[in-house]
Amino acid sequence: MKKSSIRKNYFFLHQVLFFFAVFAIYGQNDEAQIKSFYDNSLTQGQSYAWLAHLSNTIGGRLSGSENAKLAVEYTKQELEKLGFDVYLQPVLVPKWERGKPEEAFLRVNDKKITVNICALGGSIGTPEKGLEGEVIEVNGMNALEKLTPEDVKGRIVFLNEPMDPTQIHTFKAYGNCVNQRYSGALEAGKLGAKAVVVRSLNLRLDDFPHTGSMTYGDLAVENRIPSVAISTNDAEKLSKLLKEESSLSLYLKMSCKQFDDVLSHNVIAEIKGSEFPNEIILVGGHLDSWDLGDGAHDDGAGVVQSMDVLRLLKLTGIKPKRTIRAVLFMNEENGLRGGLKYAEEAKKKNERHIFALESDSGGFTPRGFSFDCNASYFNQVLQWKPLFEPYLIHYFKQEGSGADIGPLKSEHTVLAGLRPDSQRYFDYHHASSDTFDAVNKRELELGTATMTSMVYLFDKYGLQENSLKH
Amino acid sequence: MKKSSIRKNYFFLHQVLFFFAVFAIYGQNDEAQIKSFYDNSLTQGQSYAWLAHLSNTIGGRLSGSENAKLAVEYTKQELEKLGFDVYLQPVLVPKWERGKPEEAFLRVNDKKITVNICALGGSIGTPEKGLEGEVIEVNGMNALEKLTPEDVKGRIVFLNEPMDPTQIHTFKAYGNCVNQRYSGALEAGKLGAKAVVVRSLNLRLDDFPHTGSMTYGDLAVENRIPSVAISTNDAEKLSKLLKEESSLSLYLKMSCKQFDDVLSHNVIAEIKGSEFPNEIILVGGHLDSWDLGDGAHDDGAGVVQSMDVLRLLKLTGIKPKRTIRAVLFMNEENGLRGGLKYAEEAKKKNERHIFALESDSGGFTPRGFSFDCNASYFNQVLQWKPLFEPYLIHYFKQEGSGADIGPLKSEHTVLAGLRPDSQRYFDYHHASSDTFDAVNKRELELGTATMTSMVYLFDKYGLQENSLKH
Repeated sequence: MKKSSIRKNYFFLHQVLFFFAVFAIYGQNDEAQIKSFYDNSLTQGQSYAWLAHLSNTIGGRLSGSENAKLAVEYTKQELEKLGFDVYLQPVLVPKWERGKPEEAFLRVNDKKITVNICALGGSIGTPEKGLEGEVIEVNGMNALEKLTPEDVKGRIVFLNEPMDPTQIHTFKAYGNCVNQRYSGALEAGKLGAKAVVVRSLNLRLDDFPHTGSMTYGDLAVENRIPSVAISTNDAEKLSKLLKEESSLSLYLKMSCKQFDDVLSHNVIAEIKGSEFPNEIILVGGHLDSWDLGDGAHDDGAGVVQSMDVLRLLKLTGIKPKRTIRAVLFMNEENGLRGGLKYAEEAKKKNERHIFALESDSGGFTPRGFSFDCNASYFNQVLQWKPLFEPYLIHYFKQEGSGADIGPLKSEHTVLAGLRPDSQRYFDYHHASSDTFDAVNKRELELGTATMTSMVYLFDKYGLQENSLKH
Repeated sequence: MKKSSIRKNYFFLHQVLFFFAVFAIYGQNDEAQIKSFYDNSLTQGQSYAWLAHLSNTIGGRLSGSENAKLAVEYTKQELEKLGFDVYLQPVLVPKWERGKPEEAFLRVNDKKITVNICALGGSIGTPEKGLEGEVIEVNGMNALEKLTPEDVKGRIVFLNEPMDPTQIHTFKAYGNCVNQRYSGALEAGKLGAKAVVVRSLNLRLDDFPHTGSMTYGDLAVENRIPSVAISTNDAEKLSKLLKEESSLSLYLKMSCKQFDDVLSHNVIAEIKGSEFPNEIILVGGHLDSWDLGDGAHDDGAGVVQSMDVLRLLKLTGIKPKRTIRAVLFMNEENGLRGGLKYAEEAKKKNERHIFALESDSGGFTPRGFSFDCNASYFNQVLQWKPLFEPYLIHYFKQEGSGADIGPLKSEHTVLAGLRPDSQRYFDYHHASSDTFDAVNKRELELGTATMTSMVYLFDKYGLQENSLKH
């Protein structure tokens, strides 16, 4: 038996005894109230209809785009219709445009083989006529580090580290190799590469290239190189051909471009607390998305769920003691400017956030929450776990929370992320496959109810200091 | 605090202590072995490729059809290729054919409005020119019971009880109103109805009619009436028009037909046990499907997972102590003849099944198991729950198991069903939407690994009598 198991078991026993001691103070009221959130979400939820508009009528909402502006206006209007106080918080955001659809092919012995690529967000374009070069394949950033400028100079670096399929939490697999997408151009650029092509961060073999953010860091402008993602099927094909063919080159043509920052907004709606208005509970997602799909899972889902949390509280007659705020952040994808701005303003105003919950892992069946807080607060949250059991919400772990709420981190705040089932998430993430039809209505609504229940408990009981003393 | 909660908590504490007492006898070997099942399933799984063939190359596999025969041959060959002993167990099955695609429309003030319907499995057809009648709507079987022959005679009965969206377990919602599909024609036929149209058992509003089994019971042949399902969207439309329009009739044309029983087979593959060959562990799914889709979720998934359980055991070097048998049952959908035949033969041969596990709830992310066994055996199984925690398998409940293995029920057998996430299942169930593309490879493979792990534990430890005494 491993030590970690023993520790886990003692902890488990501790939990059981603790549970006996404190469960009496939470009662059947909470059970009934939480049931009403689930019932109402599944029968009268609004999240799916809102998502249909965001996805199908507006579409992809890249920061600084006309669509992002429409999404701000639409969500503001919808929240105002429900009678909430709505405020637009100004924030300057980067503006990058993909331009004309990218073109790419492999040239193998005078034969051209089209491959599916897309520019990574923030990449420079190629010369108007495109560029072409030999390809050198490496298995991720550790392998790239071992190359010299002689290996790389004038070539296109192909970063082909696949996501690890044995990770049950697919976000871990993503985290383990996302650096090739984010820093590939920076590191290959230092070595004098002509361009970078990165295997799409997708566990499935298919034809969709997946975009995402990248950086040039402090690389001089003349050393910056175009950076693209290639579909997993084409990454496999390219890797195979590199082994088989002595003459192979890759042609890329991209017209993407970075513009000056533009003014955009976070959308903030709130219900003022009746007893402790200065204690703020935040629930949020991000309004911007990548431009390829319509951003239904990333993060239209989190946006409409957060809006519906406020609506469900009102619908079920809850008069919150604390201030409940839905925040629809702008620019999570390529800058995090909305999250940073929100935290900056909160600090200026000396606002006290006791709990912040983000949904930014897709609109799939909810499995639980991850928490970023101290052991005492985590212990408090664990008391509530049995209330979620009937809804098959089992996952309560101390892990990360969400990118947008990260800047709110403090000693006296519980940060949390909704954790939906993650198996399908990277089939859609940042790709043209992230569309409304990939979201199931019930799964989305179960997520809303799960979030509402946790917000309700934090509102009712507040943050209990020294929970460990129980 | 409710009594049931107190009982649950004492039980919970009991489990903790029990866990401490017995965990030492299961060790890190099991952890490592189970990890290897998951790793191998996610990297070298065969289930998805087999499912592609069953779904895309063969297609729907209704009992008695040519496709069902092809599926028997294909799975037998694949299992033989892997070196297992394979046996075809003869079983007579019903044969019913849909015939030409059904036609249906609403006639409202001389306007024809096409609606999406399909014959229920086992229904008689209409006269060659179709039939037409006024419609009387009832909210399910309880409402139908209250009608008199005068209400119903010469009319088409419309059973429109929706599945309850507030059920978290969608199979419960299904179970609560499936009787309108199964017995609607029987009860309405007794009252002299002209036909029956049943709301599709689907939680989503869409255009797919969902077929399924039905019965005429002991109804005289002349009283039998055609029985169809209508899509949920069209059920809503019909219900609305019935309220708004004084003149409305429904036209139905179906050419479906029942034929004589035909010979078919269960496919059985096994690894003989090295120490206790007479103790049998069964893992299975059903090879037949409805004819509308390609039966990928119902139950191609269960078939290929069961086949892959045997393959994974072999691949990871397990030499089972007990006999492990994969059984691909024929005719679950409209007769259960395969399951009945298998149990009958097992009884004749005096075979002892200690554990039988069926996967017949779709190829979605596995959440756990339901068990049909006594408290002592259930207690034994609960010891193993922590081994499944890393794979987010949390659901262990005493409930039903699976239709095909049900006839094996005995005092000294643990029956179990794999319980995948059920939110999307009824979007596809028995409809033309149940196709290969609706199955996610990882979700399917996680199910296979989960099944393999439970089979492994039963093989290693056997059935422990009087587990409650610990």
